[in-house]
Amino acid sequence: MDLTQYLDTTAETVDKVISRHFGNVYGDLFQAGAHLLLAGGKRLRPAVVLLAADAVKKNSADDVMLAAIALELTHTFTLVHDDIMDADAVRRGVPTVHTLWDEPTAILAGDVLYAKAFEFLTMTEASDRAKVHAVRMLGKTCAEICDGQSMDISFERRGDVTEPEYLEMVQKKTGVLYGAAAAIGGLLAGANPIQIDALYQWGINSGIAFQIQDDLIDLLASTEATGKDRASDIREGKKTLIAIRAREKGIDLAPYQRELTADEIDEVIALLGDAGVLDEVRAAAVERATTAKRALAILPESEERQLLTDITDYFIERGY
Amino acid sequence: MDLTQYLDTTAETVDKVISRHFGNVYGDLFQAGAHLLLAGGKRLRPAVVLLAADAVKKNSADDVMLAAIALELTHTFTLVHDDIMDADAVRRGVPTVHTLWDEPTAILAGDVLYAKAFEFLTMTEASDRAKVHAVRMLGKTCAEICDGQSMDISFERRGDVTEPEYLEMVQKKTGVLYGAAAAIGGLLAGANPIQIDALYQWGINSGIAFQIQDDLIDLLASTEATGKDRASDIREGKKTLIAIRAREKGIDLAPYQRELTADEIDEVIALLGDAGVLDEVRAAAVERATTAKRALAILPESEERQLLTDITDYFIERGY
Repeated sequence: MDLTQYLDTTAETVDKVISRHFGNVYGDLFQAGAHLLLAGGKRLRPAVVLLAADAVKKNSADDVMLAAIALELTHTFTLVHDDIMDADAVRRGVPTVHTLWDEPTAILAGDVLYAKAFEFLTMTEASDRAKVHAVRMLGKTCAEICDGQSMDISFERRGDVTEPEYLEMVQKKTGVLYGAAAAIGGLLAGANPIQIDALYQWGINSGIAFQIQDDLIDLLASTEATGKDRASDIREGKKTLIAIRAREKGIDLAPYQRELTADEIDEVIALLGDAGVLDEVRAAAVERATTAKRALAILPESEERQLLTDITDYFIERGY
Repeated sequence: MDLTQYLDTTAETVDKVISRHFGNVYGDLFQAGAHLLLAGGKRLRPAVVLLAADAVKKNSADDVMLAAIALELTHTFTLVHDDIMDADAVRRGVPTVHTLWDEPTAILAGDVLYAKAFEFLTMTEASDRAKVHAVRMLGKTCAEICDGQSMDISFERRGDVTEPEYLEMVQKKTGVLYGAAAAIGGLLAGANPIQIDALYQWGINSGIAFQIQDDLIDLLASTEATGKDRASDIREGKKTLIAIRAREKGIDLAPYQRELTADEIDEVIALLGDAGVLDEVRAAAVERATTAKRALAILPESEERQLLTDITDYFIERGY
């Protein structure tokens, strides 16, 4: 099976399970909690949980389905809370929870999803020992994600963000949840500590590669392809790896922190391209992806291991 | 040991453990998370965890100390988020997290405490099976607490709140966490399902009794004793059991939804007293307390079982 097929099939199954558990919830609060969860999405983190389990032990994906849902619940809770902080009005093509309901409801809706994530993790088919390990890992991961979001917000007020700081933020905000998804899928299926660590490293590095590619897409991809404004990061002065490398090369992006015409965006792209920034940033994403894929080598060869590798490639090859 | 002595000693120990884990955290976010946690408090929920464990199995309190901390972390996370929603500026004698930092930081600080609660629960000394059970119960409890807070907020906009609705709200907002504290303490110490349920029922009913007594205290206790404005619930039109019973008796409290003089407050008290409302509400608290204490009968006699009973009595006898 190729990756697109696999992800489509899995997303359909995950959607069904989510709909079964959250499609008919009662009361305003639980409907608010289910809102974004039911709005779809690529369900990448559940797919990673399922693939990691199968890569460790054939045919164990079904057993860890509720853990896969737990990871999607966790992801969704962070989105609901982030949308409040970032005052974002639209997510996954639907109005955000705090705009459709209100801010208190959105805080509580995120908190409910958070609770459900841990509840679902305990309901999965696995040894109690593995479940306790998984809960501890998810707890640690959630605290790190919060730290990543906090760093991201604090970067807005700073002009001197360094590359290590950026990488730490991205690792926490995006990497660790992919790391936890892979490691939890694996450990619930009976992975040994070395395999668990390899899966975690795969996830962290894939997640970082994903985020770096996201920064490139924001600048380079057309609005038609992404559905977002082109170069919004530059306009908002976001501290991306592109911005940090540009600063190191003495390129001043401050004049571009305003509404930009298509020609002006092309001008910035040319400026960054000529200075080698874009190639360097692309290389950084490729390097992370390589590290991620290399980590998987200790797992036995399997279709699922290959699909994990394909996910990493997809993260850095996607154009939007 | 009498209850006051026990609670003081336990609070001291709990404070020490909290200080060891959260006294020297690094970074703005984790300091914001630790802020309210380090501000003290009566540490009643940890005490319940420890007592329930000892009541089930002698000398097991030390083993479940980190679970006791987990319950305090849970309670504190709900306070941090509630303070944002209720726009409260002071809590436990210190400025609230969102006033000292800002709202995004307070949302994230609450989320970090939430994560730590589950992490600490897995770190306690108990069988993996018991820990998984405890995690599931805490997850379920957190979702219910959110629902309780959501109901409480929605009641503000309604004039027709019924007594069953009030009791459901209070059970979720206050009762279930006491229920979970007792049940988790017991199950980690090896309680059987009947004991676990008894402890849970004790906690729920004690928590409801606590809240009803809180409503009475708001009206009857002096500002000097409570540190709060007298009759603030009446002034704000809160849907307490007092207000609901008054409405049933045709007493209109609407004219008192404004600044009140001491004489006017005494007038309301006389009005409610003469109509029998205060006696009825007091009786409701006593009834819940009786149900709570009766549930404990299936546990073997012990000093700790007695202290749990004393906690229930304290909940309805306290004057502030």
